[in-house]
Amino acid sequence: MQVKVIENVLKLNDEVAMLNRSTLRDAGVFTVDLIGGPGCGKTSLLEVTLRELAGTMRIGVIAGDLATTRDADRLAKWSQQVVQINTGKGCHLDANQVRQAIAQLDVNELDLLIVENVGNLICPVGFDLGQDVKVGMFSLAEGDDKAAKHPYIVAQSSVLLLNKMDLLEHVPFDLDSFRNDVRSLNPDVQLLEISVMRGDMSPWLNWLTTHATRRIAEAT
Amino acid sequence: MQVKVIENVLKLNDEVAMLNRSTLRDAGVFTVDLIGGPGCGKTSLLEVTLRELAGTMRIGVIAGDLATTRDADRLAKWSQQVVQINTGKGCHLDANQVRQAIAQLDVNELDLLIVENVGNLICPVGFDLGQDVKVGMFSLAEGDDKAAKHPYIVAQSSVLLLNKMDLLEHVPFDLDSFRNDVRSLNPDVQLLEISVMRGDMSPWLNWLTTHATRRIAEAT
Repeated sequence: MQVKVIENVLKLNDEVAMLNRSTLRDAGVFTVDLIGGPGCGKTSLLEVTLRELAGTMRIGVIAGDLATTRDADRLAKWSQQVVQINTGKGCHLDANQVRQAIAQLDVNELDLLIVENVGNLICPVGFDLGQDVKVGMFSLAEGDDKAAKHPYIVAQSSVLLLNKMDLLEHVPFDLDSFRNDVRSLNPDVQLLEISVMRGDMSPWLNWLTTHATRRIAEAT
Repeated sequence: MQVKVIENVLKLNDEVAMLNRSTLRDAGVFTVDLIGGPGCGKTSLLEVTLRELAGTMRIGVIAGDLATTRDADRLAKWSQQVVQINTGKGCHLDANQVRQAIAQLDVNELDLLIVENVGNLICPVGFDLGQDVKVGMFSLAEGDDKAAKHPYIVAQSSVLLLNKMDLLEHVPFDLDSFRNDVRSLNPDVQLLEISVMRGDMSPWLNWLTTHATRRIAEAT
């Protein structure tokens, strides 16, 4: 019984996700589902992304959290198109929540939509939201075993971000071991080693810009 | 339908949790459910705990992860009574998994059992495993907003650990703001600010020893 209900939930989710995908693609919006554990730096990444690409690209954000509007408050400084979803005890965003958030955005005035999922490396992986790509995010402070321990997000990501590289001298982290785990789980993924607080963010910004520009070109 | 099934799942879980609690209390074992996000330092905390309390106390560990036996491998050095549970895509441990793990332990030869839950600050909070207390764990590297964003684990914990205090000068973190969030969500919780890698662990070790000793006294 439980399995059947879960299958139904996922089937319904997938149907709404397809609707979201169609809405967003028709509007020429490239959509990223950003997934990472609590405190890996998702909101800080978005702050830098919105700030650096302002003027180049119109970016919307849907931010998921159990509680508080702290993320949306931080991001509202950089974009008018920010929606916070509070999930209560919900451990992931689903396609229906994203659909309701999309209704609050003017997607025809967006080039790029980033969904900052609830801080959780597990449950969000299984839910299609209608995104073009999933981007997994780890932090150096979490330790070098986290790719191996979270194989599903690694396998499903188009890009993996390893953030807080500036802490390399302050925490134990075997970079080769982490890279090898990533390669063996997903030989095709692009691994970008970054420091949102202190590093050069151009590899990430260039990747985003390239993909969003391609979508704009497709749509016109 | 979905709500009904979830209620049934939780009801069945609670029944098994009661069995676990009764088994463990009868054996005089004090049981901790340790909950924290990926990389907050749960396994390192257990390494130090097992090492420091060896000779004083007989400690068993049940370690939950999606994949790999890395945690159990690290801990087996310090205790013969370590069981790893791989949950696959499962985002939390449930009482039945813990019951099966308990069957692999000799609980009559234990004073303390620590369940290292799957690295996730959300889903594990809702599942009773038969523990005496839940202990929530955060890391300084995760940022000072994480208590406010995860109110349920803060409210349900007997002790909260804030780990990686040694990173205070390397990451932005407003300690007063974090402390205030914790106080307003749970005025009774004990907040222990620690550094597993570099700090004095006696507040945590003393807290554990006091509670486990009380249980032994009750059981005899």
